[in-house]
Amino acid sequence: MSLTESTPESAAKAASFSAQSLAVLPVSARNAALTSIHDALSASKDTILKANARDMELATQASQSGQLSQSVLKRLDLSRPGKYDDMLSGILDVRKLEDPIGQVTLKTRLDEGLELERVSCPIGVLLIIFEARPEVIANIASLAIKSGNAAILKGGKESTHSFEAIATVIGSALQNTEVPIAAIQLVKTRDVIDQLLDLDRYIDLVIPRGGNELVRYVKDHTKIPVLGHADGLCSVYLHKDADKDIAVKVVIDSKTDYPAACNAAETLLVHQDVLKTVLPDVATALLQKGVSLRCDETSKAALKEVLRPENAVLLQDATEEDYNTEFLDLILAIKTVPATAFSSPSSTTNGNTSSDPTTTDEEDPSLNLAIAHINAHSSKHTDSIVTASSQAAEKFMSAVDAAGVYWNASTRFADGMRYGFGTEVGISTNKIHSRGPVGLEGLTIYKYKIRGRGQGASDYGVGEGRREFKHERLD
Amino acid sequence: MSLTESTPESAAKAASFSAQSLAVLPVSARNAALTSIHDALSASKDTILKANARDMELATQASQSGQLSQSVLKRLDLSRPGKYDDMLSGILDVRKLEDPIGQVTLKTRLDEGLELERVSCPIGVLLIIFEARPEVIANIASLAIKSGNAAILKGGKESTHSFEAIATVIGSALQNTEVPIAAIQLVKTRDVIDQLLDLDRYIDLVIPRGGNELVRYVKDHTKIPVLGHADGLCSVYLHKDADKDIAVKVVIDSKTDYPAACNAAETLLVHQDVLKTVLPDVATALLQKGVSLRCDETSKAALKEVLRPENAVLLQDATEEDYNTEFLDLILAIKTVPATAFSSPSSTTNGNTSSDPTTTDEEDPSLNLAIAHINAHSSKHTDSIVTASSQAAEKFMSAVDAAGVYWNASTRFADGMRYGFGTEVGISTNKIHSRGPVGLEGLTIYKYKIRGRGQGASDYGVGEGRREFKHERLD
Repeated sequence: MSLTESTPESAAKAASFSAQSLAVLPVSARNAALTSIHDALSASKDTILKANARDMELATQASQSGQLSQSVLKRLDLSRPGKYDDMLSGILDVRKLEDPIGQVTLKTRLDEGLELERVSCPIGVLLIIFEARPEVIANIASLAIKSGNAAILKGGKESTHSFEAIATVIGSALQNTEVPIAAIQLVKTRDVIDQLLDLDRYIDLVIPRGGNELVRYVKDHTKIPVLGHADGLCSVYLHKDADKDIAVKVVIDSKTDYPAACNAAETLLVHQDVLKTVLPDVATALLQKGVSLRCDETSKAALKEVLRPENAVLLQDATEEDYNTEFLDLILAIKTVPATAFSSPSSTTNGNTSSDPTTTDEEDPSLNLAIAHINAHSSKHTDSIVTASSQAAEKFMSAVDAAGVYWNASTRFADGMRYGFGTEVGISTNKIHSRGPVGLEGLTIYKYKIRGRGQGASDYGVGEGRREFKHERLD
Repeated sequence: MSLTESTPESAAKAASFSAQSLAVLPVSARNAALTSIHDALSASKDTILKANARDMELATQASQSGQLSQSVLKRLDLSRPGKYDDMLSGILDVRKLEDPIGQVTLKTRLDEGLELERVSCPIGVLLIIFEARPEVIANIASLAIKSGNAAILKGGKESTHSFEAIATVIGSALQNTEVPIAAIQLVKTRDVIDQLLDLDRYIDLVIPRGGNELVRYVKDHTKIPVLGHADGLCSVYLHKDADKDIAVKVVIDSKTDYPAACNAAETLLVHQDVLKTVLPDVATALLQKGVSLRCDETSKAALKEVLRPENAVLLQDATEEDYNTEFLDLILAIKTVPATAFSSPSSTTNGNTSSDPTTTDEEDPSLNLAIAHINAHSSKHTDSIVTASSQAAEKFMSAVDAAGVYWNASTRFADGMRYGFGTEVGISTNKIHSRGPVGLEGLTIYKYKIRGRGQGASDYGVGEGRREFKHERLD
């Protein structure tokens, strides 16, 4: 890790240059570097915690004068029980993952002695911009090295001392390894984010690790592809045949397991037919957990009729804006899905009825209305349907445009560890490259290799003496 | 296909909305739509050629007054022998390709009754901007429908009449199919490219089909991911142990098979040791084919010594700019790769020698110099090495950062048909999503589906009564 006060451009150039050495290292060399980083960070715990204590001191002052939130303070603190050890074991977890590089995903014999192979390879140079959490440095450095990518790290000003201390340790740990030190670049200079975001010549992918505001800022200020998600507006839809117990479990977990998470539910769509059968138990359970329910007129009226008075009095009115809001809090917007298509909230703009999903499926117009609402309001993160019908579930999962589409399961399962990826680079709501929880694979791309004996394209095709391609798929 | 004078926004909105109907259509319905389009275009050949003749008439006038190039005129002409039939058979070729949608690429049992699946799905809405060639409409409409994507088409003004005629036919052909007509949107309004490129809310991927200038303009004016390549600066490197016959075959084919193609070679790197052994035959063969050779001092001096006088006199001097130029013509820049590392043209910026690929590999510094030159000057499209050493070839293929890295084969193989993909959406030099020749797969992404029985994330983890994930990989 470079310890100099690199300019953004020199850091990016050095990272880009070192990426080609990193790309040819065997996994044993990359793993050895992770071991070295782990051991060095373990040995330097005291020094690093001391540096972190300085950051905490300054941050506490800023917090007391109201310039910094309590939650930033909490994220900054490396001395909290288990946090440092989690950081260390995270490095070993990454080390034991399967090598994502050099995987052959396609092999074709174009002709005798002319073979095509598609092989996974590193993307190149990653730019990681993060806010307060200093342990992200170790995590990201591990992920980058394991996947053969160079990385440029830019931390927030609150974590400056921790950042420097960890960087120094990682830098000297790398000196005894085959991984080029320049492959992990630290940019300490302030106010350089815009300059970094301009360096599309050297940087291949930006990963912002922080709040919505950071992600949105990054997305709005760069031409480099950004891996991540700004919003997490997830919905749960209770279909007309939803099982009551499943509905309660899925909605309660989706909303209350960790309301500040991006995969928590923010909107509950309810089929008109179950407003007085399934919804009341769901609503009662939510109210018991302290969730504020913002209801549309129809659902509120139905609930008022059947809830106990002490619960009914808690119901609030929803505004249109509530259906576009990521509350990240114990608040849920509830909307009724009418049982017929005639009150469709959506309409096509070109008068072509066959393209209107609210009318194509005559058997189940309300399902289409729910799908249309989600596609218009959700953030393509994770959406779930509760239904007894596999047909409705499959339709929902095909038609809802989101990274995660679930049937009778909580939206909270959208997570790299829960998916069994071993690690998580982030959750992507992009429509290309990587979608949903992104594991190491998301930090790779592929290249096509051809091994021949001097053949030219002019040897093949139609005409005398020309050969035909075999295009034989190999294992 | 919408025949109205859609505004960019209404077209994008309608396409986006219809994408959710398209996403649930089975492949049989998508293929039936292709059959319908094929038959309709076949039946309307006369009408369409009449419209095309009007475009040709106006374009010929523009060409005569010098406003339009001959090559545009040629690309515009649908009446050239075989062109219309190629367009028709192209639709059937796409129809017979394997369905790219619904492919399960990962299946994991998270727990009993809780299964995770990663399934390929359409990206959503494609924006295709093309220049003169009117047959691209049929090609792109077929690719979009086959892959379940909606598409917005924006053609160049030269092809207006052909475009309208083909669009009308496709539009009525779709009316008898399950594919929503609004899924293929035609934007005829002029000067709306910038507005379309702003619609990242509705459009997921832009595919420019045209010259470098168009691609570069599109890349510079949108936040939507762009699939394509602006440049095709490909290199061939003759290593110290290059076989002479192979070198001649690979270089001649790479340079002269079709010099105007993006996969033609523009730079020839030659190891110092073979300047007088292998290069002379290569140079003589190139000169015989009418290729202008722009040489650096060392290679020119060596060739002067050994070439016949009538050939030697043809050699030209290279400028630095030649090594950054995509000639797209019978011109080749030649550069010597020195046999030692001491004259390294590259240097690191941070003084960290271990990151310097010109010095890490002590056995073969010249190979590293060639790799460094290519990574600095080539356009990450396709680069080839001619060598007898598998070790050198493998190193080259790992370290060169390009979509195609070849050993003893012509750069001209970089092509979707030659790779056996059945079709080609374009060639991408992007570092994420799709790289190299892009087949139908490049128009897909995936979503994660979970099928459960009401489980919540809080059921799992550490603690009493909590379950552990199984994470069992299924076939």
